[in-house]
Amino acid sequence: MIRAGIVGISGFGGKVLMDILLNHRDARITYVAANSTVGRVDDIWPVFRGRTDLVCAKYDQAQAVELCDVVFLALPHMESMKVVGPLLKAGKKVIDLSADYRLKKASLYKTWYNAEHTDRRNLAKAVYGLPEIFRARISKSGFIANPGCYPTAALLGLAPLVSVHGDKVASIIIDAKSGTSGAGRKVAEGFMFCFVNENFKAYRVLNHQHTPEISQFLGKMAGRDLPVVFVPHLLPINNGILETIYVTLKEKMSEAKLDDLYRKFYKTEPFVRVSPKGAQVEIRNVVDTNFCDIALTLSPDRKLLVITSVIDNLVKGAAGQAVHNMNIMYGIDEREGLL
Amino acid sequence: MIRAGIVGISGFGGKVLMDILLNHRDARITYVAANSTVGRVDDIWPVFRGRTDLVCAKYDQAQAVELCDVVFLALPHMESMKVVGPLLKAGKKVIDLSADYRLKKASLYKTWYNAEHTDRRNLAKAVYGLPEIFRARISKSGFIANPGCYPTAALLGLAPLVSVHGDKVASIIIDAKSGTSGAGRKVAEGFMFCFVNENFKAYRVLNHQHTPEISQFLGKMAGRDLPVVFVPHLLPINNGILETIYVTLKEKMSEAKLDDLYRKFYKTEPFVRVSPKGAQVEIRNVVDTNFCDIALTLSPDRKLLVITSVIDNLVKGAAGQAVHNMNIMYGIDEREGLL
Amino acid sequence: MIRAGIVGISGFGGKVLMDILLNHRDARITYVAANSTVGRVDDIWPVFRGRTDLVCAKYDQAQAVELCDVVFLALPHMESMKVVGPLLKAGKKVIDLSADYRLKKASLYKTWYNAEHTDRRNLAKAVYGLPEIFRARISKSGFIANPGCYPTAALLGLAPLVSVHGDKVASIIIDAKSGTSGAGRKVAEGFMFCFVNENFKAYRVLNHQHTPEISQFLGKMAGRDLPVVFVPHLLPINNGILETIYVTLKEKMSEAKLDDLYRKFYKTEPFVRVSPKGAQVEIRNVVDTNFCDIALTLSPDRKLLVITSVIDNLVKGAAGQAVHNMNIMYGIDEREGLL
Amino acid sequence: MIRAGIVGISGFGGKVLMDILLNHRDARITYVAANSTVGRVDDIWPVFRGRTDLVCAKYDQAQAVELCDVVFLALPHMESMKVVGPLLKAGKKVIDLSADYRLKKASLYKTWYNAEHTDRRNLAKAVYGLPEIFRARISKSGFIANPGCYPTAALLGLAPLVSVHGDKVASIIIDAKSGTSGAGRKVAEGFMFCFVNENFKAYRVLNHQHTPEISQFLGKMAGRDLPVVFVPHLLPINNGILETIYVTLKEKMSEAKLDDLYRKFYKTEPFVRVSPKGAQVEIRNVVDTNFCDIALTLSPDRKLLVITSVIDNLVKGAAGQAVHNMNIMYGIDEREGLL
Repeated sequence: MIRAGIVGISGFGGKVLMDILLNHRDARITYVAANSTVGRVDDIWPVFRGRTDLVCAKYDQAQAVELCDVVFLALPHMESMKVVGPLLKAGKKVIDLSADYRLKKASLYKTWYNAEHTDRRNLAKAVYGLPEIFRARISKSGFIANPGCYPTAALLGLAPLVSVHGDKVASIIIDAKSGTSGAGRKVAEGFMFCFVNENFKAYRVLNHQHTPEISQFLGKMAGRDLPVVFVPHLLPINNGILETIYVTLKEKMSEAKLDDLYRKFYKTEPFVRVSPKGAQVEIRNVVDTNFCDIALTLSPDRKLLVITSVIDNLVKGAAGQAVHNMNIMYGIDEREGLL
Repeated sequence: MIRAGIVGISGFGGKVLMDILLNHRDARITYVAANSTVGRVDDIWPVFRGRTDLVCAKYDQAQAVELCDVVFLALPHMESMKVVGPLLKAGKKVIDLSADYRLKKASLYKTWYNAEHTDRRNLAKAVYGLPEIFRARISKSGFIANPGCYPTAALLGLAPLVSVHGDKVASIIIDAKSGTSGAGRKVAEGFMFCFVNENFKAYRVLNHQHTPEISQFLGKMAGRDLPVVFVPHLLPINNGILETIYVTLKEKMSEAKLDDLYRKFYKTEPFVRVSPKGAQVEIRNVVDTNFCDIALTLSPDRKLLVITSVIDNLVKGAAGQAVHNMNIMYGIDEREGLL
Repeated sequence: MIRAGIVGISGFGGKVLMDILLNHRDARITYVAANSTVGRVDDIWPVFRGRTDLVCAKYDQAQAVELCDVVFLALPHMESMKVVGPLLKAGKKVIDLSADYRLKKASLYKTWYNAEHTDRRNLAKAVYGLPEIFRARISKSGFIANPGCYPTAALLGLAPLVSVHGDKVASIIIDAKSGTSGAGRKVAEGFMFCFVNENFKAYRVLNHQHTPEISQFLGKMAGRDLPVVFVPHLLPINNGILETIYVTLKEKMSEAKLDDLYRKFYKTEPFVRVSPKGAQVEIRNVVDTNFCDIALTLSPDRKLLVITSVIDNLVKGAAGQAVHNMNIMYGIDEREGLL
Repeated sequence: MIRAGIVGISGFGGKVLMDILLNHRDARITYVAANSTVGRVDDIWPVFRGRTDLVCAKYDQAQAVELCDVVFLALPHMESMKVVGPLLKAGKKVIDLSADYRLKKASLYKTWYNAEHTDRRNLAKAVYGLPEIFRARISKSGFIANPGCYPTAALLGLAPLVSVHGDKVASIIIDAKSGTSGAGRKVAEGFMFCFVNENFKAYRVLNHQHTPEISQFLGKMAGRDLPVVFVPHLLPINNGILETIYVTLKEKMSEAKLDDLYRKFYKTEPFVRVSPKGAQVEIRNVVDTNFCDIALTLSPDRKLLVITSVIDNLVKGAAGQAVHNMNIMYGIDEREGLL
C-alpha cells in the first residue's frame, strides 16, 4: 500500500487529490498538510464528512518524510520549490502540481512568474508528467512536474501532429476557455459570482504564464521551435477547459490521414479519446473524469486544421493526471482510481 | 429638473440608481460620491462608458448640499446614519437605501446589527418608502427609509391579506430565495463563483436582520403583532428574489374572495401585478423591472394560503423603489424612469 | 458477481446507474435496454467512451431474464408496471426507480398520475427502498420501489422526529427546491436553458405527485396521518435538492435533545450526515454523492423546528439509493460503489 | 409618431423589439403578429404585463399595410422572403432581422441555408443595416437587411483595420462565443438546461451560415476577398457574444497607430466603444445595451493583432440595431430608445 501525502489540501487541487486517493485501491492517504489552514479535512471540505477522519496540519518536513512514500504538492506557485529539495533528499517520491519545475530555464520564472527560482538544482531532475508523451521517463522518475491545465489540453491536442509532422506546421493559435476553478480558491472581486456569472472575457491576452510551458514542450516534440499564440478566457462554469486550436499548415494535408494519425497515436492510451468523425467535443463529457477528448476539422482548402480539445482542469489538468503519474511510477494499473 | 446625488456608487444599488436616473426625464445626476472609491464612474462601472462623464468623489457634505436637491444614500448599513442629519438640516430630501432608518426602535439595531444607532433623533422622521402602502406619507416627506429587498417582496405579498384580514392570520412562514447581488459587492469566499454556482443553501436561518423589519410593518398593517418566521436562501443567479409565503388561517377562506381582494387592493398600482389564475410567478418576469408579481394558491381545506412573490432585489427591492419614492415626493408621474 | 441490467439507459437515472455500476466491484452490467433509443451506450452518453462497449437494445423480456440477476428499471412512470410482473415471475430481483409501486393504494395513481394501475397484484409486494427506515425488509425482498427524490430528502429529514415524537408534530410544511435534472430528459420549453437560467419559480404548488408518497410514509413512521404541505421549486442548477422543512410542534422541545435524537438515529448510517451545530447544509456538499445532509434549527420559542435536508436527486434520490438497495439485498458492503 | 409593426413576437428578437419600442418616444407599436402564436402579448411574454395591452394576431398583409409605417420582421430565415415583397410594394419601410436579404448572391442561400431564394428581385434593394459602415445608404433606404449577430461583432471589430489597411491583412481567424439565446426559442435537446449549463462546445466548425455574410462585407470594406475562418461556440449564458479575432498581418504595425485608427474611426459613433489601453472587454458590460466594445492587443513581434469584440446578440446583434436603423431612416436622434 502506497503511503501518500497531500500538501495543500485547502485548494481545489488538493481537494480533488483527496477525492481520488480515498478510493484508490493501492494507496492510502497518510499525511495531509497545508500552508496555513489546519483542522479536520472534513471541516475544510464538508463534502468529505463520513469519508475521512484525517486532520490537516501545518506542513512539517520531518512528518512528511516519516509518514509518506510519495508526496503530492498542491501548493501555490513559488511555494513548492521551498519544500521539494529536502523531500527528494530523503528519498521520497514527489509529484508537484505547481508550475515550479515545469520550465527548464530558470530565467523564465523571472519573466513569467516575476520571482527567482530558488531550487535550480532540482529543475533538471524533474520529469514533465504528461504520461502520453513521457511515460517511459515518468516510470523511472522519483520527481514529477505535473503539467498545467492549459498545457495539458494543448499538448495532447497537438502531440500527434507536431511529433510526426512538426515540419509542416506554419503557426499555432490556441484560443482557450477555462472554468473558474482554474483560478484556484483565490478570493478576489474578479471571481465573485456576480462578476463571472452571465459573463465571459479574455484575460492575460498574449501574456499568460502557461505560454512558455506550451512552447517548450511543443518545441521538444517537434524538434524545433514552433510559434505559438495563446489567449485564455474565463468561462462561467466551475470546471472544464476547451481549447480551440488553429494550425496553419505549410502544405495540404488529408483528413483521413490526420484522423488515422491521431487514432493510432492514442490507440492504447486509457485517457485520450479521439472523437468519432463529425462529433464535437463537449466539456460535459469530461467533467469529473481523467479523459481528454479531441476532435479534428480540416478546412476545405486542407491548409488549416482546427483541433478542439477538452479536459477537466482539476482532474486531467491537475489531480487526476498526478495520480496517473503515481500509478506509472509504481508500476500499477494506470487506470486505478481514475475510471 | 431635479438635481439628484448618488452616494455609494461603487455598490450594486448605486449602479442601478445610476442606470435608472440617467434615463429619467425629470432628474439629472449632479453629484456622485462614495466612501472610498474615487474616479470616473465609467471606470468604476465600464457599462456606463458612452453614457456618462460623471466623476465620483469622496463624500463631501458641503458639495452634496450645494449640488443636490435630493440625495440617494446607497451606503452600507451603519454608514448612512453618519450623513443623514446634516443633509436634512440643510433642507435636502434624502432617500436612504440602507437599513439605518427602517426600524422604529433604536434598540433593535443593537440586537440585529450589533451597533448603537447614532442618529436616533431622525429615526422617527423617516417615512418607510413602500409606495403601495405609505404613498400619502411619502408624498409629504423629505426623508425616506427605502425598504429592504426581502421585506419588499414579503410585505407586498402579504399586505392585502394582513391589512384586511389580519385577525384571521394564525401564522406566517416566509421561505425566501435571493440572487447573489443581494449580498452586495462583498468580496468573501462564500460569494465566489465556485462556491455559489451549482449550489444552494439556507443562511442565517431564523436569524436574518430583515426579520424585525418585516414584523414591524406587518404588525402595523394588521394592527397587532403577527408571528413571522423568516428563512432566506442563496440562489445561484445574479438578481431576483422569490418568496414562498405560507399563511395558516384561523378560518376557511374563499379562493375567489382572496383573488378579488388582491386584485382590488393593487388595481391602480403601476408596479404590482397579481398573476392570472393558475399562472405562477417567475423571477425572469421581473428581473430588470420595478414590478412585483404575486400569485396565490389556497389549499384544498382552504386553511392554508401559499403566496409567491417575486421582485428584482436591486430594482423594486432597492434602486427602482427609491426612484419611485422620489417620483412621489416630487409629484411627477410615478412610472417615470421605471417602465 | 451480480449480473445487473439497466432498462432506461437514455434517461438521467439510467446514466447515473451506469456510472455507479461500472465501478461496482461485485456487480457487472450484463444488459442495457431502453424504450426507444438503441445503439452503443457511449454514443447515447459520450461520457462513457473508453469505459464501456455495451450496446443498448430495445427492451426484450426474454433477454432480460436470461442475462440478469437483478434488473434496474429507470423507465418513465406508468411504463415500469408493464414489465415488472414477468420479471418477478421469472425469479428476478427488480429495483424500480419509477413511482409505479411506491403508493400502496392503486386509486392514488388515478388521482396523481391520471392513469389506472395495471399491475395491482404486485403493488403489495413492493418494499419501499429507503434503507435507513426499511433496511430489514429490503434485505429480504426481491422487489424494491425505489423512493422518489423529493420524498427521500423529506423522509430522511423528518424520520427521527416523526418516528419518535410523531405525536408532538402539529403540522409540516416542506418547501423544496430541485435542480433541473429532476425533470428528466424531457425536451420542453420550460426546461430550455434560457427559461431556467437566471430564473427561479415554484411549480405544481400544493399539487405535486410526490405529496402522497411523502404523506404515506410519514404516516407509517408516525403511526398516524400527519398533515403535510409540499411546494416544489425549480433551481437553475443541474443536480441537487434542498428542502426546508418547517415543523410546528405541539409542545416546546429542546435543541440539545433534538440534536441528540438525530445523531443517535443516524449513528450507524453510512449515508446520512447530521451537520455540526451551527453549520448549514449546502447542495454542493452532496452533489455526485450518495449522502443526505441534515441540519436542525429550533426557534427561540422552541415550538418551530426548521430542518434543512440536501441530497443529489440523481444519486441518493435515485440511482445511488437503488444500488444501495441492491447491496442490501445481496448482503454485501452497503457502501460498495457509493463512496 | 412612427407606426411600427412587429412580426414574429414569439421569438427572442421580437420580444426585445417590443421592449425597446415600448419606450421609444417617436414610435408606437401599432401591429403585432406571428406565424403561429396568437393572443395577448403579455400572455406570450408575461414580462410585459402592465406595460402593454397589445394582442398578437396571425400575420395578415392587409392589416400590416394599413396599420404600419415600418414593419420589423423577426421571422425565421426563409420566412421573411415570403412577406417582404408586398410590403415594399405597398410603400412600407421594412427592417428584416432574418438572414434572407443579407447575402447578395442568391445562390449562397442554396449553399448555406439549403433553400432556393424566392424573392431575388428584392435582394439587390436591401441595404445592409450596419450603421457604422452604411449609415448614408441606410438613411435613404426603405428596406434594411439587419445584420446577423456574429457578423455584427466581427465586422465592427475589423472595420477600421480592414477598411484602411485591408492590403496588410494576411488572414483572419474568428473564434466566436455566443450565449444560448442566439439559437432562438428553438426547443431541442441541445439547448435544454442540463445540456448547456456547466458545458461549453464548438458547433458548426468551419461550417456556420454566418461565414459568407462576414466574408461578403469584409470583402466589400477591403476592396478584395479576405480569407476568413469562423468557428462559433455555445456559452452557458443567456445573452452576449464575444469574438476573439486573430489577424495575421503582412507587415509589422504599430500599437499606437492601430489604437489611434480605431479611436478615430469610431469617434462619433454612439454605440461603439474602444476600450482603454490595457482593459479587456467583457460581455457583462454590454448585455442589455446597444454597445459594441472592442479591445486590441498586438503581439510582441507586431505581426499578429488580437481583437476582442463584444455585443449583446439580441440588442446590438438584432433588435437594438434594427431600431438604430429605424432611427436613421427617419432622421431622428440615433440614440432614441437605445441608451
